Amino acid sequence: MAKYIYFFGKGKTEGNGKMKDTLGGKGANLAEMAKLGLPVPPGFTISTELCRLFYKSKMQFPKSLKSEFNKYVKKLETAAGKKFGDASNPLLVSVRSGAKFSMPGMMDTILNLGLNDKTVEAMIKLTGNEKFAYDCYRRLLMMFGDVVLDIERKLFEAIRDPNPKTVVEKYKELIQKHSGKPFPQDPITQLEMARDAVFKSWNNPRAITYRNLYKIDHNIGTAVNIQTMVFGNMGNDCATGVGFTRNPATGEKMFYGEYLTNAQGEDVVAGIRTPRPILELAKEMPQPAKELRDITDRLEKHYKDVQDFEFTIEKNKLYMLQTRVGKRTGLAAIRIAVDMVKEKLIKPEEAVSRVEPLQLNQLMHPMFNPTERSKFKVIAKGLNASPGAAAGKVYFDPDKVCEMADKGERTLLVRSETSPDDIHGMYKAEGVLTATGGMTSHAAVVGRQMGKPSVVGCSALKVDEHNKLFRVADKTVKEGDYISIDGATGEVMLGDVPTMESEVMQVVKGTLAPEKAPLYQYFDQILKWADGIKRLKVRANADIPRDAQYAMKFGAEGIGLCRTEHMFFAEDRLPIMQEMILATNLEDRQKALDKLLPLQRADFKGLFEAMRGRPVTIRTIDPPLHEFLPKREDLMVEVATLKAKNGPVEEIKKKEQLLSRVNELHEFNPMMGHRGCRLGIVYPEITVMQVRAILEAATEVAKSGETAFPEIMIPLVGHVNEFNHQAAIVHKVADEVAKETGIKIKYMVGTMIEIPRAAVTADEIAKEAQFFSFGTNDLTQMTFGFSRDDAGKFIHNYVDNKILPSDPFVTIDQGGVGKLIQCGTEKGRSVRADLKVGICGEHGGDPESVIFCHTAGLNYVSASPFRVPISRLAAAHAVLREKAKRPHSGTPYYRVSPKRSGAG
Amino acid sequence: MAKYIYFFGKGKTEGNGKMKDTLGGKGANLAEMAKLGLPVPPGFTISTELCRLFYKSKMQFPKSLKSEFNKYVKKLETAAGKKFGDASNPLLVSVRSGAKFSMPGMMDTILNLGLNDKTVEAMIKLTGNEKFAYDCYRRLLMMFGDVVLDIERKLFEAIRDPNPKTVVEKYKELIQKHSGKPFPQDPITQLEMARDAVFKSWNNPRAITYRNLYKIDHNIGTAVNIQTMVFGNMGNDCATGVGFTRNPATGEKMFYGEYLTNAQGEDVVAGIRTPRPILELAKEMPQPAKELRDITDRLEKHYKDVQDFEFTIEKNKLYMLQTRVGKRTGLAAIRIAVDMVKEKLIKPEEAVSRVEPLQLNQLMHPMFNPTERSKFKVIAKGLNASPGAAAGKVYFDPDKVCEMADKGERTLLVRSETSPDDIHGMYKAEGVLTATGGMTSHAAVVGRQMGKPSVVGCSALKVDEHNKLFRVADKTVKEGDYISIDGATGEVMLGDVPTMESEVMQVVKGTLAPEKAPLYQYFDQILKWADGIKRLKVRANADIPRDAQYAMKFGAEGIGLCRTEHMFFAEDRLPIMQEMILATNLEDRQKALDKLLPLQRADFKGLFEAMRGRPVTIRTIDPPLHEFLPKREDLMVEVATLKAKNGPVEEIKKKEQLLSRVNELHEFNPMMGHRGCRLGIVYPEITVMQVRAILEAATEVAKSGETAFPEIMIPLVGHVNEFNHQAAIVHKVADEVAKETGIKIKYMVGTMIEIPRAAVTADEIAKEAQFFSFGTNDLTQMTFGFSRDDAGKFIHNYVDNKILPSDPFVTIDQGGVGKLIQCGTEKGRSVRADLKVGICGEHGGDPESVIFCHTAGLNYVSASPFRVPISRLAAAHAVLREKAKRPHSGTPYYRVSPKRSGAG
Repeated sequence: MAKYIYFFGKGKTEGNGKMKDTLGGKGANLAEMAKLGLPVPPGFTISTELCRLFYKSKMQFPKSLKSEFNKYVKKLETAAGKKFGDASNPLLVSVRSGAKFSMPGMMDTILNLGLNDKTVEAMIKLTGNEKFAYDCYRRLLMMFGDVVLDIERKLFEAIRDPNPKTVVEKYKELIQKHSGKPFPQDPITQLEMARDAVFKSWNNPRAITYRNLYKIDHNIGTAVNIQTMVFGNMGNDCATGVGFTRNPATGEKMFYGEYLTNAQGEDVVAGIRTPRPILELAKEMPQPAKELRDITDRLEKHYKDVQDFEFTIEKNKLYMLQTRVGKRTGLAAIRIAVDMVKEKLIKPEEAVSRVEPLQLNQLMHPMFNPTERSKFKVIAKGLNASPGAAAGKVYFDPDKVCEMADKGERTLLVRSETSPDDIHGMYKAEGVLTATGGMTSHAAVVGRQMGKPSVVGCSALKVDEHNKLFRVADKTVKEGDYISIDGATGEVMLGDVPTMESEVMQVVKGTLAPEKAPLYQYFDQILKWADGIKRLKVRANADIPRDAQYAMKFGAEGIGLCRTEHMFFAEDRLPIMQEMILATNLEDRQKALDKLLPLQRADFKGLFEAMRGRPVTIRTIDPPLHEFLPKREDLMVEVATLKAKNGPVEEIKKKEQLLSRVNELHEFNPMMGHRGCRLGIVYPEITVMQVRAILEAATEVAKSGETAFPEIMIPLVGHVNEFNHQAAIVHKVADEVAKETGIKIKYMVGTMIEIPRAAVTADEIAKEAQFFSFGTNDLTQMTFGFSRDDAGKFIHNYVDNKILPSDPFVTIDQGGVGKLIQCGTEKGRSVRADLKVGICGEHGGDPESVIFCHTAGLNYVSASPFRVPISRLAAAHAVLREKAKRPHSGTPYYRVSPKRSGAG
Repeated sequence: MAKYIYFFGKGKTEGNGKMKDTLGGKGANLAEMAKLGLPVPPGFTISTELCRLFYKSKMQFPKSLKSEFNKYVKKLETAAGKKFGDASNPLLVSVRSGAKFSMPGMMDTILNLGLNDKTVEAMIKLTGNEKFAYDCYRRLLMMFGDVVLDIERKLFEAIRDPNPKTVVEKYKELIQKHSGKPFPQDPITQLEMARDAVFKSWNNPRAITYRNLYKIDHNIGTAVNIQTMVFGNMGNDCATGVGFTRNPATGEKMFYGEYLTNAQGEDVVAGIRTPRPILELAKEMPQPAKELRDITDRLEKHYKDVQDFEFTIEKNKLYMLQTRVGKRTGLAAIRIAVDMVKEKLIKPEEAVSRVEPLQLNQLMHPMFNPTERSKFKVIAKGLNASPGAAAGKVYFDPDKVCEMADKGERTLLVRSETSPDDIHGMYKAEGVLTATGGMTSHAAVVGRQMGKPSVVGCSALKVDEHNKLFRVADKTVKEGDYISIDGATGEVMLGDVPTMESEVMQVVKGTLAPEKAPLYQYFDQILKWADGIKRLKVRANADIPRDAQYAMKFGAEGIGLCRTEHMFFAEDRLPIMQEMILATNLEDRQKALDKLLPLQRADFKGLFEAMRGRPVTIRTIDPPLHEFLPKREDLMVEVATLKAKNGPVEEIKKKEQLLSRVNELHEFNPMMGHRGCRLGIVYPEITVMQVRAILEAATEVAKSGETAFPEIMIPLVGHVNEFNHQAAIVHKVADEVAKETGIKIKYMVGTMIEIPRAAVTADEIAKEAQFFSFGTNDLTQMTFGFSRDDAGKFIHNYVDNKILPSDPFVTIDQGGVGKLIQCGTEKGRSVRADLKVGICGEHGGDPESVIFCHTAGLNYVSASPFRVPISRLAAAHAVLREKAKRPHSGTPYYRVSPKRSGAG
């Protein structure tokens, strides 16, 4: 016969701390504490297995349950030395839910079961406290009415009377009226109804929503814990409280928590009375306080982790009601992990496994001063695209941002959406706020790349760039008004919330010495341990020397992606680039390219110098040319306006000519248009110039005695012939440069695999290409047929409706895109065993994707400089997961915080 | 020792007609004729193998060649009864190239070799005709100078003198001057030099270009034919001519050709003298004429195909110089094939194999009256997107086209590019001409779908839609001017070239009885035979009942794709559709959908009725919603103009509101945006309406006693969950309709496989979906990352530079897209063995792609109605190719005509 119930209590405990699958977290920890001999009120746990069976059997229990349940009721009566319904010493119990994963507040608790009209009298006699007894009965009636009988809590709350006995009478009437039956006087009936109600609460709407958000399996079910009541509200020698063995916000090693005397558990969190710091307990009740300190110390050592505990003191006797691993901030997680290694409680591997990679973010981005922040009003919420806090004056035009920033103003760039022309403004702004676009929209990608706080897709904003204002609900924010954005939460606040730069960033930027930055040292220690564990290399995506320097400080082992075109958007270069594009013949185009060559060469030299011999992957030009020209619609409007106003004929003509060329370059779907290697094939002279700049720069570095190792990468290859065309140019130019300078630079030529056709024909391509870098942004776009600039319009609907488990632009879609990555890697290595394979999409900084890349056998991931630490830690987690022989499943390893609730 | 030379001539012939690989086409046919005992002047063929060896050995011959060559020279002298260089009866020969595939005019011929200062005297004596002899010598010097010594032909042509002897002297001087050496007097030296020159001419630039265009292998080499000269120019009892055993233009069974008396071969084609119809030869030279008729009859029966022959009559004696299978028009190909079956010359299978599927086109599209056409000027040339001839007045606005067409005018729609809003105009216009876009641009696809003559991507056109004119070079064509376009050649002509509708189309449209249409009968006969051979089913893409009716007449076995959204573009529906899109809440959207329901139901009913129980695959809505709204840029310009002119405030406000909604729907890459099932998932009510319309229509048809078999197809599925979401709606609505009407309609639910992710996860999808239809247009777009609306800008460069073998939007890219089709089919059938699989992209009407689909094991292809006959024939060819056990290779089975030469 299956076993559904497990007893706990001194000497008779049947479960233990490892049985969370069966007993739930609370039940397992109660059993473990009881086994350790700690003062746990006796009780029993009804297993999650019974819950699953209950749902499978259409809310029916197996026949054997009744007798098993009665057996455990008797056992509990024996252990407690009291009997249910006893007129002199009645047994009272609590009934609590407890699933494997904590779901705070999602399901229900009922206290004081066993009270009825008869036993309440016994309690009065026992305690000599009629008010206490009736208050307990009142609480039972309200909780039972709410949880079991589904009577709205506010109906109970509306009933007020100074005499608790009167309240009890009125509550009973309310129950009779709403449920059509009187409150059940039989304690066993109460117990059974409460048990069933807890099982049913597993599928109440808020529990379902919670599990959706935290990606908890809906099928695991909950356990029910039935435990002897102890009372913290029997008088002033009674108390109840909660605490942590270390500070969960900062990680500091200190006894942390709060308590109330003469109170029941819910009073501590209800906020009616102000609880007192737990350290004061020692003064008030020295004996139980000491015992509590000893017990929690012991629990921390036993579990080797911070404990989050609940206790009650009944007439100076301490009872432990709960203990569990304490949740903590990123900062605390790192500090606690490092401290515990120093205390020899855990090994470095364990410390590494306890820090979630994304938690590192919290140490990197500027923060709002928390006390100041609460004074400001949140006016809207968008997507938390790039974490960090930023405040400044609103501007709608990147040039204006630059102008004002150069004058020393803090600015925020607010746009409907951003485009590559806005980069200078984004760079100068404190942060970026857009009304449209998803987590990988231009603003989001560049924001993260720059480590710039960004809130995107804030659809409540009606941006009117023309009139230089935005509206949100009834508020209008004009150019020059202050707002503040929190890139970690997506919140937009009215006004200038003060921020501060993190210690870690100060060290990376060289404004703070590492030895004066204790937080940086914790951060650095965890990452050093991670480096000792990981096998996957981590590179950075960096386009300019400054980013490369940051990347090095963050531990990058090379540059995995330098986007050469970003260099063309600089103020002094854009006009030359436009000259090149507007050229109608090779000669004019060549003239412009000749001007760009020395500029690019200088950039590359800076990168090589910063990377000191580490590999630098440089991608030839990628975006469609019209991105460098004024917007077509803007020109059309300008021309129409000039014409309507009978403007100067010459100016109209000039604008029309420009518009005509822009029209020629216009594309309906630029993401699938004339870009990538398609540009270099139609205009080989562009590739020639870029390759020359790379190799001349490398030669200059070599002359100075340093090594430069360029890996030249051809983008958007779909057919091996495209690669061959461009690779031939690379080799030809390399030979020329070697001949001219007498120095032969070691370089590689490889390709992005970002077009599905390239993945499918990777064996053909690998015969020619020396390395692969999966461009997972484009590969995700093409594999799904999702434009990342547009998918925001429906992708949240998809995630909310479980059509997709997560945004594939954030976490690699293993079932589809991942298959192409595996297929491409296998095919590539089938013809070139030592093929170097990496990824350089945004996914290179996403922990779950990094772990996938490790599993898929890639050599490296490349992430934006500010994500490098995250990827290093994730790469270590990949090895630890492998060691734990946990086979990789579709469900994420990390708990992900909910980003948006509902579709709003 | 390898054999490099093959003799031909009565009794001693070493080769035969099947040895084209070794002897080239000309050599093999000469050998075959000689073997048949026909009067062929003796000679020998130097094999292609030697040519290949020649190139492989850096233009060196094996040592053994010299003696073998000498041996054959002797053999020839014996056979001819003459000797080279003989002072009394010298042997003269021609040297001609001859590869496996005919490359007319691409390589070189030299006549009269063996003449020198001595033998010319012998010829004078032999013929008594000094002028003739010197004329022969002159021709030799010119041809030798040009072909062997590389002296420009025009230098020879500049030398004129009435006395041929003087010309000969001057030619010899020219040769001495330019080559530094005298003309070689030794006949064997002449011969060897000529032979080497022919081998070298294999790689002259025009031969290379030709082979590129016609996709002929550059490595097969040419043979050289050395043959005893016979002279059609010895006097009036001499003649030379060319002919066909049947009319190659019409296929009529008639002796067809032309000849000249007293002339050499080149004079017939040179156009200096007007040749006479070959039937007249019988009057002039009855004996050789009868012999020629007998011989060519015999050759046609021998080869069982039309012969294209060359002959010379020397002093009343007939010599056959060449025979080969005659090239013919599509019309002739069909007629000849059918006639030959009737004559029991060939079997139906052979007849089917002799008609290239694309040749059927020529019987379907209206034609320009050929005599009239030559009177008009060609002003530009674009891509021949949709064949057929069209002439009409130019209009730049689809509404204007409709207006004028309704008034009875013939119109041509000229646009920079077309969009779905132009469909009504395209439908009403005679033809469509665009300045941009490739072979699968909107204009091209819809043009073919409609069977509408279309020339697209005509980049010489500068279309100024605003001023209602286009410019081409120095010409300006204004609204209302007549132009004519030929969709088969891409030519644009100024003026109104008269056209006539083809017989086939008249029959299909019901305006001509089949029995009165002999061409239709030929067409129909070939297709009936093809149907008896093919296994692949052929369906049609049709959106409206009229197209379905045409499809039926063209032999479609069902509808493979009904694009439901096309129904929304109709004049009476677009406003309702816009109402639906502009709705900001479900209630308003539902109101608009309720209005659309009866309209869609009526459309579907018409389709079901037309198809009489054959399967009808209906795709739920696919394009992004903004396609139904006014263009964003147009609105922006309107608003700007109104504002600049201080227009009415109310109107500005209204336009701005519309613009605001259009901006919300605007997408950067609409092809990868919110379209396909993504619409039906975010707005399930649209799918509900469409499914209800389908099933209610099917029910109405069922009530009338006819069968309707809807296959409901969900577009743009990338993840099985998307399919499941939509399939659940289909089943739910089907159940509702069945309950309401009491009639249960048999239907299927399947999906398009057009997203790479769908192909990669086809096994997951096939568990749920009952059929697959590969949407090869989108699949090609996503697999390559090529936007078909934009790829025109670089795809020709790719094809010209051999980066791609052909435009993947025209012929399926077997190496990439084809792999995904195979992978998707295999994975799909691995979980559902009877999965019905088809394709419904434009490729369904491309012969090579149809053959691929057969090979890949698909069940059907679906093509536009006007391509159905082509696909039927191609499907038969697929079976014949399989039978011939020719393994499918990457090179096309069909000769494709060159569409554009060079990049221009």
